[in-house]
Amino acid sequence: MITSTHNPRIAAARKLRRTQERRATGLTTVEGPFLLEEALAAGIVISEVFATEDDGAAAALCSDAGLQVTLVSERVLESLAGSVTPRGPISVIAIPDGNELEAKDTLVLWDIGDPGNAGTMVRTAAALGFQVAATHGSVDLWSPKVVRAAVGGHFRTKLITGLRAEPGELAVAGLQPVIGTALATRKAEEALGGNEPVALIIGNEAHGVPDELVNDPVVQPVSLAMPGGTESLNAGVAAGILMYLRMLQRP
Amino acid sequence: MITSTHNPRIAAARKLRRTQERRATGLTTVEGPFLLEEALAAGIVISEVFATEDDGAAAALCSDAGLQVTLVSERVLESLAGSVTPRGPISVIAIPDGNELEAKDTLVLWDIGDPGNAGTMVRTAAALGFQVAATHGSVDLWSPKVVRAAVGGHFRTKLITGLRAEPGELAVAGLQPVIGTALATRKAEEALGGNEPVALIIGNEAHGVPDELVNDPVVQPVSLAMPGGTESLNAGVAAGILMYLRMLQRP
Repeated sequence: MITSTHNPRIAAARKLRRTQERRATGLTTVEGPFLLEEALAAGIVISEVFATEDDGAAAALCSDAGLQVTLVSERVLESLAGSVTPRGPISVIAIPDGNELEAKDTLVLWDIGDPGNAGTMVRTAAALGFQVAATHGSVDLWSPKVVRAAVGGHFRTKLITGLRAEPGELAVAGLQPVIGTALATRKAEEALGGNEPVALIIGNEAHGVPDELVNDPVVQPVSLAMPGGTESLNAGVAAGILMYLRMLQRP
Repeated sequence: MITSTHNPRIAAARKLRRTQERRATGLTTVEGPFLLEEALAAGIVISEVFATEDDGAAAALCSDAGLQVTLVSERVLESLAGSVTPRGPISVIAIPDGNELEAKDTLVLWDIGDPGNAGTMVRTAAALGFQVAATHGSVDLWSPKVVRAAVGGHFRTKLITGLRAEPGELAVAGLQPVIGTALATRKAEEALGGNEPVALIIGNEAHGVPDELVNDPVVQPVSLAMPGGTESLNAGVAAGILMYLRMLQRP
């Protein structure tokens, strides 16, 4: 059993809490038995599983999958998770390849900063049949916090990270970029039909979408009706409504 | 300036972080200038405004509204907010009366536990023209965390707390109770028309809605389509989609 937080394998796994380290190694960590199970079902390569002695669920899961569990102390598990009551096991997994946009309905995270919002969007996208692309300025989709908030969505749809911040990239992939903004006159429900796959763009929580995006000729601005008189929806909720409206009109 | 956290007015305001105390006094606290401004615009009674000396926004707002600001030290403000970097001012406000369901479209929080989820739902409800009712088993809608997450929604729609956990109460108020559950065969978008106001019921995040609710004859179970093959949407997102679908078909 590993009881030292300085153990090199533990130190290497702990470093994966940093975005740079995840990008350099192509690895990330996931917490708990559910996400490990989802990753296994999706055929993701699992390189480490760290669990405490009394973690029966992890042991059973890994035994079925022919994976070796590395036993660690409670304190080592806490150091890996960066929280005081982590849900074991903590697994190191290979991030699936995500460079190429496919020609299918896509949710685009344009500089989304909050991991909880990003995770909720990945979760909804996976449920509603959307791939997810995120600009460089967004939170890393493979951060453990985003993965936790998406409750397995990462393993049920394709994620593309490091999108250049230009709508042309979406058009080149055959997508019709549509942007959600409170200021547009065209209603979302009237603009989400069409036979071509759409790219629904959700802007930063505080600053919305930049003007050059709204004014880009390849982008179609639409708005959600808010009869309550506010212009205020949570970004994850707005994304969910837009995706559902598109799904209802999908060819 | 109040510099002691033991000052009786400070101690009384700090106690409002407890649900019991809010129910006993009919008061709650809100953080920051935006929520104070929204409360003022809604005609809410403000009983205290605590701010630090360098909080110019609070001073200007209160001067315009004829409210007296009580200056406090940074440490006192922190003790009131229960966080290390509170956004001043902290205001004590009267909770508006919320006992009676009106005969209008209603979002019902059925034992929703997470303050962030509850706040997101209040925010969306306010934007889409729904009142919000919460069962006794739900997080208190007037908890400062819920108020913060709703970004002013509390002051733009009616909130009813302490709903008894029985659908009959909704029917008596003239509402058609509709429940969102992954297991129903009827699709949400086909069941949300109708001339009577609806009550959209959202169940607990972990346990969903209880069977007796699904099987209650006054309740109509509906489901959201999830072609991605999961049965997983965040409760706040599901609520947002259901409310939007209803709004599009509102008479």
